[in-house]
Amino acid sequence: MIYITRRERFSAAHRMFRQDWSDEKNLEVFGKCSNPNWHGHNYILWVTIKGEPSENYGFVMNLNILKKIISEKVIEKLDHRNINLDVDFMRGRIATTENLAVAIWDELKPEIGKQGALLHCIKIEETENNFIEYYG
Amino acid sequence: MIYITRRERFSAAHRMFRQDWSDEKNLEVFGKCSNPNWHGHNYILWVTIKGEPSENYGFVMNLNILKKIISEKVIEKLDHRNINLDVDFMRGRIATTENLAVAIWDELKPEIGKQGALLHCIKIEETENNFIEYYG
Amino acid sequence: MIYITRRERFSAAHRMFRQDWSDEKNLEVFGKCSNPNWHGHNYILWVTIKGEPSENYGFVMNLNILKKIISEKVIEKLDHRNINLDVDFMRGRIATTENLAVAIWDELKPEIGKQGALLHCIKIEETENNFIEYYG
Amino acid sequence: MIYITRRERFSAAHRMFRQDWSDEKNLEVFGKCSNPNWHGHNYILWVTIKGEPSENYGFVMNLNILKKIISEKVIEKLDHRNINLDVDFMRGRIATTENLAVAIWDELKPEIGKQGALLHCIKIEETENNFIEYYG
Amino acid sequence: MIYITRRERFSAAHRMFRQDWSDEKNLEVFGKCSNPNWHGHNYILWVTIKGEPSENYGFVMNLNILKKIISEKVIEKLDHRNINLDVDFMRGRIATTENLAVAIWDELKPEIGKQGALLHCIKIEETENNFIEYYG
Amino acid sequence: MIYITRRERFSAAHRMFRQDWSDEKNLEVFGKCSNPNWHGHNYILWVTIKGEPSENYGFVMNLNILKKIISEKVIEKLDHRNINLDVDFMRGRIATTENLAVAIWDELKPEIGKQGALLHCIKIEETENNFIEYYG
Repeated sequence: MIYITRRERFSAAHRMFRQDWSDEKNLEVFGKCSNPNWHGHNYILWVTIKGEPSENYGFVMNLNILKKIISEKVIEKLDHRNINLDVDFMRGRIATTENLAVAIWDELKPEIGKQGALLHCIKIEETENNFIEYYG
Repeated sequence: MIYITRRERFSAAHRMFRQDWSDEKNLEVFGKCSNPNWHGHNYILWVTIKGEPSENYGFVMNLNILKKIISEKVIEKLDHRNINLDVDFMRGRIATTENLAVAIWDELKPEIGKQGALLHCIKIEETENNFIEYYG
Repeated sequence: MIYITRRERFSAAHRMFRQDWSDEKNLEVFGKCSNPNWHGHNYILWVTIKGEPSENYGFVMNLNILKKIISEKVIEKLDHRNINLDVDFMRGRIATTENLAVAIWDELKPEIGKQGALLHCIKIEETENNFIEYYG
Repeated sequence: MIYITRRERFSAAHRMFRQDWSDEKNLEVFGKCSNPNWHGHNYILWVTIKGEPSENYGFVMNLNILKKIISEKVIEKLDHRNINLDVDFMRGRIATTENLAVAIWDELKPEIGKQGALLHCIKIEETENNFIEYYG
Repeated sequence: MIYITRRERFSAAHRMFRQDWSDEKNLEVFGKCSNPNWHGHNYILWVTIKGEPSENYGFVMNLNILKKIISEKVIEKLDHRNINLDVDFMRGRIATTENLAVAIWDELKPEIGKQGALLHCIKIEETENNFIEYYG
Repeated sequence: MIYITRRERFSAAHRMFRQDWSDEKNLEVFGKCSNPNWHGHNYILWVTIKGEPSENYGFVMNLNILKKIISEKVIEKLDHRNINLDVDFMRGRIATTENLAVAIWDELKPEIGKQGALLHCIKIEETENNFIEYYG
């Protein structure tokens, strides 16, 4: 079994808050991340898949196909967007990195399965000092 | 003459657009950077000052004082904020990195002068693939 | 299950040696790392915790609380200190990165448990070419 | 159990292709990676071993010995070489990073075993946007 | 005056040698960089231009245009290629990073001038431990 | 004129203090950097030289020779040492990065001149958030 990881990036605005809470309650729980006028990040996304290298080609999955899937299903929807307002697969979820990792997993898993490989991990870095990993 | 650089970071939302233009015109000139719902970045800021090391202390300027000046005058106003809406020294300017570098220069120059050193350069990285430098 | 990692840094002096050995024996086993006048590093520490995101908040654990725990229990004791001489939880242990990782695990595990999360991994980078991971 | 990772680098030329295919077929499957005049990369290699720290020394394995093994068995054979033409342990294999990781595993595993430690993972980064991991 | 830098990458094979020298002489002067079967690198290229931000747009030059110029004139010719054999603007020059920087300068200078900006610096990193800068 | 930069690293202990001051006075001026039991850093050193590429070789200076000079004159004296106690060229100077940069300049300038090139800049990074540049 071999693990292959592709790194992609997107820049997006977001805000951590719950609509059913007051601004004070949001500020208390989420701190400056709940700023009503938004803030943003350069997110880094690592998608790890696993499988056995094919004897024919010597690789687990064509990286260009993996890149195209991630681009169409994830990056184009997130890059230079507002995670709370513009992204269909984040509707109704609090815009934490945890929730974002789970949502991206759900977007990518079936597409990667169609290519004969398995999705192994979604890792998202929000700032250079914190990141999230999700293994399904 | 010795040059000392302090690196700081802030995460902010912004949008590149002119209010006197239509959305179409903004999209044509600024591309996806003009998305009406904002986007954001992890900006990295390098502040370079210059001077001669004092014989008494062996340094040009106490780095803790430099750090405090940058924090109060720049980072606290920008971090987890919206550059277009929340930042006093960016009012009335298009929120490009070029304009941001000039505005930060204007904020820091007098404060650093009071400490007996000279401001030399403001460098701002917007993404890992582009950055701006301004020398006054 | 989601894994969250917080990155922190500290700069410290240390020396690898055993008091019951001669300088020659220490030099033979630990090489230049046993220099009697000490040397030092910019250590990077990654603390990974795991848990399920709460439905209320959308996160596993408030990152500000995690940051505060790591700061008080680990960074303040190590940063700008001598690992062999100044750090209570390293008394009587050879100052290898392996032993440091285990000691930090022991410091953090109960505090993180009190917050309803689980400590998963302590990773310490000593130089850009070597790092240690400990999973308990 | 503690995991120790040593990072090394090598710069090499390679080409992804099968001799029994036409240039057109190679181009179709491997894209620009099949350029007949070669291309190259700054590969980064992480070798992770695992074991328990010895009570005598406080470390799992002397890093200088690990460094020497990786240097002699892997780096000297790959650095400033052509992976397809110059490297004995890659003869007859398609020069993908997947196959390279498996071949390096086979080179290192017995040598590390002789030192009383276990090889845990071979990780190879080909560009800043993709890497491979192999756990045997 | 504001300086803007765009970062791009390319992976290429090369060999440092002179055809009018013997293999021994090439090895003596260029060391392992003269390996007859080539080697390669992940080169990083920084292109710095300078100018005054336009009042209309708030930027010195549209970064998307700069990116397109660098891509067409430089990256497409170098990426996944052999610098000695495949690149028209390197014909007849020894494939050192010095010569590459000068050749890229000559390719880009007129194109950037047409956009009303000035080329300021070409910087090329060959490995993480060495880079070249050329200011014309 | 072409500028070439070589990057090297060393790990060292130091302490910022003046012997003719009390511990209290040292603490007041230098903060935690004056800890009597030392602390340390992974310093990164960039040495930039300048010159014209020779027509014969296509390079300004053989990088292997530059590497050897830096290693013998600087790295071997600093790596895994105490800057205050072990380094001849730092005797009698406060161990600030400013003073270290000037001392390294003085060590390297004549050696690089003998090779027909000019020393241009000494840059030293102490932590990822601050660095010093000296141009003579």
